[in-house]
Amino acid sequence: MQLITTQSAMQSISRDSHNAGLRVGFVPTMGFLHEGHLSLIGLAREQADVIVVSIFVNPTQFGPNEDLDRYPRDLERDKVLCESCGVDYLFFPAVDDVYPADSSVFVDENKVSSGLCGAGRPGHFRGVLTVVAKLFNMVLPDIAVFGQKDAQQAAVIKRMVRDLNFPVEIVVGPIVREDDGLAMSSRNTFLSADERAQALWLNKALQLAESMVKDGNSESLAIEFAMLNLLDKKAHDIKPEYIAIVDATSMKPVNMAGEGILIAIAARIGKTRLIDNMIMGEV
Amino acid sequence: MQLITTQSAMQSISRDSHNAGLRVGFVPTMGFLHEGHLSLIGLAREQADVIVVSIFVNPTQFGPNEDLDRYPRDLERDKVLCESCGVDYLFFPAVDDVYPADSSVFVDENKVSSGLCGAGRPGHFRGVLTVVAKLFNMVLPDIAVFGQKDAQQAAVIKRMVRDLNFPVEIVVGPIVREDDGLAMSSRNTFLSADERAQALWLNKALQLAESMVKDGNSESLAIEFAMLNLLDKKAHDIKPEYIAIVDATSMKPVNMAGEGILIAIAARIGKTRLIDNMIMGEV
Repeated sequence: MQLITTQSAMQSISRDSHNAGLRVGFVPTMGFLHEGHLSLIGLAREQADVIVVSIFVNPTQFGPNEDLDRYPRDLERDKVLCESCGVDYLFFPAVDDVYPADSSVFVDENKVSSGLCGAGRPGHFRGVLTVVAKLFNMVLPDIAVFGQKDAQQAAVIKRMVRDLNFPVEIVVGPIVREDDGLAMSSRNTFLSADERAQALWLNKALQLAESMVKDGNSESLAIEFAMLNLLDKKAHDIKPEYIAIVDATSMKPVNMAGEGILIAIAARIGKTRLIDNMIMGEV
Repeated sequence: MQLITTQSAMQSISRDSHNAGLRVGFVPTMGFLHEGHLSLIGLAREQADVIVVSIFVNPTQFGPNEDLDRYPRDLERDKVLCESCGVDYLFFPAVDDVYPADSSVFVDENKVSSGLCGAGRPGHFRGVLTVVAKLFNMVLPDIAVFGQKDAQQAAVIKRMVRDLNFPVEIVVGPIVREDDGLAMSSRNTFLSADERAQALWLNKALQLAESMVKDGNSESLAIEFAMLNLLDKKAHDIKPEYIAIVDATSMKPVNMAGEGILIAIAARIGKTRLIDNMIMGEV
């Protein structure tokens, strides 16, 4: 595995790969890798010949009062994990190279990104789209793999690829969970033992929603109420930020849940913000 | 010459060209081609092997009260001109393919684009950058050629290429003028004989500025005053929109004109909006 730090080196590698008839698969990350990321790398390996993972904690997607400074970082551990997963190139650009001091261009979206996390984190998806557009142009991948854990992010990126005509295929990998159901996240490292125990109720609330839909109780309002009620009773330190029952492509709210509908939840536990979601299966 | 109308066909052609070791040169236009455009095609031919010209009258860069509907169009004539200039592919996408009904992603810039034409045409450069980003991803060029006539557009696009890391080299071709000095523009077709005669004074005002700088009268305010005074006396139907004396890269106003400084003017004559500019040479 090679560590790459400059745009020009990264572009040369991708161009050479394309000229050799190889497909470039790309997994953009903010590092502090966990099994969720590794599963995305596995998906990339299935569909591409040359695997690039980027590690870049993107400052523009963090709000002024968010956790940019304390976001967990461990490049040496990430290197070992990437090497062990057969990553060919680890792309690790410097913040000053990615964002020159007089940077003034951005990519934004005004439909898919407006609700859910977009409502509570103004500017977040502008930061995400801008850095993903930049990374796509630096890495020139044929496919890029994102995690379903950030369901809205995946939908917003798919919309950008369509609307800006990026020649990149987006693959979305399923959520990877701990044995007890907690969705894997780099931010789980912030949780105390008690917070972690309570955090399990996010997934349990989604499971409750799923069982309601299976039982024919598909009204969005009733599902939201039942989920909130469960969290209120079982996890008193969880402060829900939203529960969204939406079309999985447009992120538009729907009145009735059902097959293909996304149920997403965001909540704070102590100082940590966690998200989880589930796409309703056949009922 | 081949006429291409779909993104997938265009991308395939560029990929095949790259795989064959050929450089793709791209000249994006809104059609109704004149010698200015043809000079840009000539520049592309000098630096690339495969020449793509796009014709797309981009609705998102026109304001609600601007001239989108009456913008001149003549595809058959444009085809003949492109063929005669050795264009390999004429890319002519449909508006509905470029902008699906639920389009929601855009590219914007907030420094280089804020003054000059950006001040008088809100949303214009957002439309320009969005369509140029889309066209770059559809055409996948190695170099793209723009005209110096739209000096601010060229500067804003260069900034986008830098800030979104597009793997495209931007070449800017000099203004092509009629024998009497009028800068070539598709919109010149709107001018009556009298308006056209008055429009010549835009270039003459720029020449006055140049001679003042050569004579050591370099204060921006004095130059602007002299230019406005000339127009007021000689071309009473010209309504200046702005005169800008700015750094040619950042578009920031400067107090003193001098080598490399851009002097740009925009004005209305009847229903037509014209722009012209000059970069100060060695003095």
